[in-house]
Amino acid sequence: MALSKIAKATLGQSRSRISTGNYVHQTTLPSREVLPSNQTYHTLLRNIISSSNVDHLSLMRRDDVFRVQSRAISHTPHYQYPPSSAAAVEEDHHLEAAKDEKLPGLEATKPGEKPRVVVLGTGWAGCRFLKGLNTDLYDIVCISPRNHMVFTPLLASTCVGTLEFRSVAEPVSRIQSALAGAPNSYFYLANCTGIDTDKHEVYCESVASSGPSNDPYYFKVAYDKLVIAAGADPLTFNIKGVKEHAMFLREVHHAQEIRRKLLLNLMLSESPGISEEEKRRLLHCVVIGGGPTGVEFSGELSDFIMRDVRERYSHVKDYIQVTLIEANEILSSFDIGLRQYATNHLTKSGVRLVRGVVKEVLSEQILLSDGTSVPYGLLVWSTGVGPSQFVKSVNLPKSPGGRIGVDEWLRVPSVEDVFALGDCAGFLEQTGKQVLPALAQVAEREGKYLANLFNEMGKQNAGKACSAQDVPFGDPFVYKHLGSMASVGRYKALVDLRQSKDAKGISMAGFVSWFIWRSAYLTRVVSWRNRFYVAVNWATTIVFGRDNSRIG
Amino acid sequence: MALSKIAKATLGQSRSRISTGNYVHQTTLPSREVLPSNQTYHTLLRNIISSSNVDHLSLMRRDDVFRVQSRAISHTPHYQYPPSSAAAVEEDHHLEAAKDEKLPGLEATKPGEKPRVVVLGTGWAGCRFLKGLNTDLYDIVCISPRNHMVFTPLLASTCVGTLEFRSVAEPVSRIQSALAGAPNSYFYLANCTGIDTDKHEVYCESVASSGPSNDPYYFKVAYDKLVIAAGADPLTFNIKGVKEHAMFLREVHHAQEIRRKLLLNLMLSESPGISEEEKRRLLHCVVIGGGPTGVEFSGELSDFIMRDVRERYSHVKDYIQVTLIEANEILSSFDIGLRQYATNHLTKSGVRLVRGVVKEVLSEQILLSDGTSVPYGLLVWSTGVGPSQFVKSVNLPKSPGGRIGVDEWLRVPSVEDVFALGDCAGFLEQTGKQVLPALAQVAEREGKYLANLFNEMGKQNAGKACSAQDVPFGDPFVYKHLGSMASVGRYKALVDLRQSKDAKGISMAGFVSWFIWRSAYLTRVVSWRNRFYVAVNWATTIVFGRDNSRIG
Repeated sequence: MALSKIAKATLGQSRSRISTGNYVHQTTLPSREVLPSNQTYHTLLRNIISSSNVDHLSLMRRDDVFRVQSRAISHTPHYQYPPSSAAAVEEDHHLEAAKDEKLPGLEATKPGEKPRVVVLGTGWAGCRFLKGLNTDLYDIVCISPRNHMVFTPLLASTCVGTLEFRSVAEPVSRIQSALAGAPNSYFYLANCTGIDTDKHEVYCESVASSGPSNDPYYFKVAYDKLVIAAGADPLTFNIKGVKEHAMFLREVHHAQEIRRKLLLNLMLSESPGISEEEKRRLLHCVVIGGGPTGVEFSGELSDFIMRDVRERYSHVKDYIQVTLIEANEILSSFDIGLRQYATNHLTKSGVRLVRGVVKEVLSEQILLSDGTSVPYGLLVWSTGVGPSQFVKSVNLPKSPGGRIGVDEWLRVPSVEDVFALGDCAGFLEQTGKQVLPALAQVAEREGKYLANLFNEMGKQNAGKACSAQDVPFGDPFVYKHLGSMASVGRYKALVDLRQSKDAKGISMAGFVSWFIWRSAYLTRVVSWRNRFYVAVNWATTIVFGRDNSRIG
Repeated sequence: MALSKIAKATLGQSRSRISTGNYVHQTTLPSREVLPSNQTYHTLLRNIISSSNVDHLSLMRRDDVFRVQSRAISHTPHYQYPPSSAAAVEEDHHLEAAKDEKLPGLEATKPGEKPRVVVLGTGWAGCRFLKGLNTDLYDIVCISPRNHMVFTPLLASTCVGTLEFRSVAEPVSRIQSALAGAPNSYFYLANCTGIDTDKHEVYCESVASSGPSNDPYYFKVAYDKLVIAAGADPLTFNIKGVKEHAMFLREVHHAQEIRRKLLLNLMLSESPGISEEEKRRLLHCVVIGGGPTGVEFSGELSDFIMRDVRERYSHVKDYIQVTLIEANEILSSFDIGLRQYATNHLTKSGVRLVRGVVKEVLSEQILLSDGTSVPYGLLVWSTGVGPSQFVKSVNLPKSPGGRIGVDEWLRVPSVEDVFALGDCAGFLEQTGKQVLPALAQVAEREGKYLANLFNEMGKQNAGKACSAQDVPFGDPFVYKHLGSMASVGRYKALVDLRQSKDAKGISMAGFVSWFIWRSAYLTRVVSWRNRFYVAVNWATTIVFGRDNSRIG
């Protein structure tokens, strides 16, 4: 088909771009700056593709893997395109060339073979789905630039060394062993660059080494059913400087960067001859966003300061300060009593709570909209998430807020055999249901639901492509909120067991909550190995204190 | 003095270079290519400095920290200098400017204050010395680009996940608590860029963040006694391509890179459409050098393949292969019986032993001197170590082989109050003693010896600068080899307890040796925390297998 040729041509071209582009230095890391010329190029591409519902093929750049890998599908990095005139010429050339080129990959399953489920993403939703899927009924192909799930609620603890990084990462092959051993199931370390819903194919580009000669591999995978669990990207509200200077906290490598920076600043601030002002700047840790992640990270930091910095960095211990900046109020989804408790507790622990709106971020200071400037040494940005570039680019119906729109059975209507769940999906307006919050809890529940739905479908022989039209889908997905928990540091936590913000129910705060919080997480950490490691980490932190080797 | 002004001028200039250099892209990682133009610049600098014994001030580039940090003092990265004509103009300018500029730092200790020992490096030698030094007698300043010691004998095990990275890294503040708490003792995360032995000062440049605005801090530290334990660099024999394409195994970040690459290649080789040949290349792990490190790493790799790859990467398990290339014979310092045992055991474990000499390394293949070409996916280079750039550049007497020359008391003669030990130091020819091998065991024993010597000096009030002339130094350092151990994988190890290669004594191989090997290391891992963690790691590896999350 013409469409697939376009897909191949574009992919082929992306490859050639990489090897011939004048703008890409061979050893350059992904620049976060956006260059203006990509607009023209995008328009060009869109014109070629617009005649059909093949999805926008975002071009991925061959890059240092650790910088681009995101929760699931990495968003299109800000690719530095050659001038558009040159691009147009190359385009034609490659369109021609691609006609003879066949993209390798997994062809559609044959009659008699098990149906193939392709899962994009390895976050909470994708992994819970993978875990629950009956591999007697299906073969699985999982595509993600990350081969593990991150146990996100404990990620904040790894930044200061309370937990080790590996304790919060669960390899996907341990979650679904078919990916390791079954003959027709695969895990591909790759980014999905496009979907052809007519042909039931996804197009992929493997994650590549950072070496000069290691180009990525391009391939396609045919699916019987497609499950998009590609996650979301951090919201920056287009505030200037955020992407360049702030650190996020969604991936293990984010936590590693924060830890390295924190320890670096602690050590640099001891260098002789540094002014008092510079010392204060270096040791000013600013957290933007007072949601559970921001509060937990602030709590962990103040814990670290009270216990470890005082002991191990005695020359500079009086210079370190944590500031939490929030435009509204912290933990706004929690009960008012809990919010007050958290405010008091954080303040007592030395966290400065500031109400403010960030206008711009510079390399060493934050400008607030009221005109004040806040010097910082470490800036962590946690103001929630929004649709990723990938989600924006796919040509599928959207929910309010721009996520991939789904019905009550998590199906993407208007196309066949495509499902979406987790942070990248939201109920369509016509379902009359509200888009669910971007919570691990929601994603996990959706993953479980969809796995059961797939297993039912499989039993009714509706697993193959285009075979589920007449099969009853059973009960729609209903989300029941089980309550929220957040740690605020120093063996204290909040537990809010109300079903919604306005409902009544149990809410509590303090040591018992903290104990519940830890136990709850310990039982939810996926494997016994990691449960054991988390327990060991917690115990050693209590006995020996945190480790402060700066190894990355 | 004029000399110090030159030092400052040069340092100041280095700073300005960084911000104005046309050649340095803001987000470029350290390029490993050597540019021709630095020769001219070096000559220029040498001319300025040549009038005295101030050491060559190697200019450090502001760089991604993790790439430049070495065992102790990072070697001068291949700095990309602007054309020499421009440099000459800038030089004059900064020489003028620097006259008014005072480099901040720690001034010489005053009478009544404790003498200050400055230690360069945090390897085995430096850390053992730090541990043994009596802090009632001395204040300590430790300068190193790495804030932890690496337990090198266990590093090979971390590459495949048998041990966690953090378990083999010991924070220096836990080795010598004065660095964390004592009022006049400091740890500086910095590189030493020069020594003025007349003024008793070292010049430093702090490790810098990778951000664009974060220039390093420059400072000096005056010493009463200087201990150089700056380590050595891997030997590449100037073979083309080694630095660009091979991986070393001396630091935790090296092990992290190897692990990431290994897991990446395992996953990439599963991508659909890859040719058989490419699959074999990706999964061909080549180790160059048959010393204990190379053998241990090969053993760990074959262990990993036999136990973990077979189970978790079943699609590609038949393509993976380990080849150990050695020019002579493996484990040449060991007893012939042990060598034979190691050869048999490795061969049985699937390691291919090849005798060959590497001529050149390309990005995907190794050229041997006999004309064969060996395609590889992962290349680990462990052919021993030699003098680092820093050691080469300091204007101090040298031992045969180019290390810093010391007498039997580890003093550097011809200058006062300077000591050197570990891999960077060697006995001067006139001592009539052989340069000791670059072993952890030697470094550790030297550190212990020197700490005792310093403690004795301190008790005799000879700790201050230029005050040890008339103090008897006691017994010279004598090295007694306690034997060698090496693991070969699969619960097997070699133990050679002979005192030298030609002596007689106990040597054994097998499970009991392996048990001794593990126990010996467990008791030598420095802190109880890490002993505990290493034991836990070993236990979980046996129970749950190795972890394969690719998080870095």
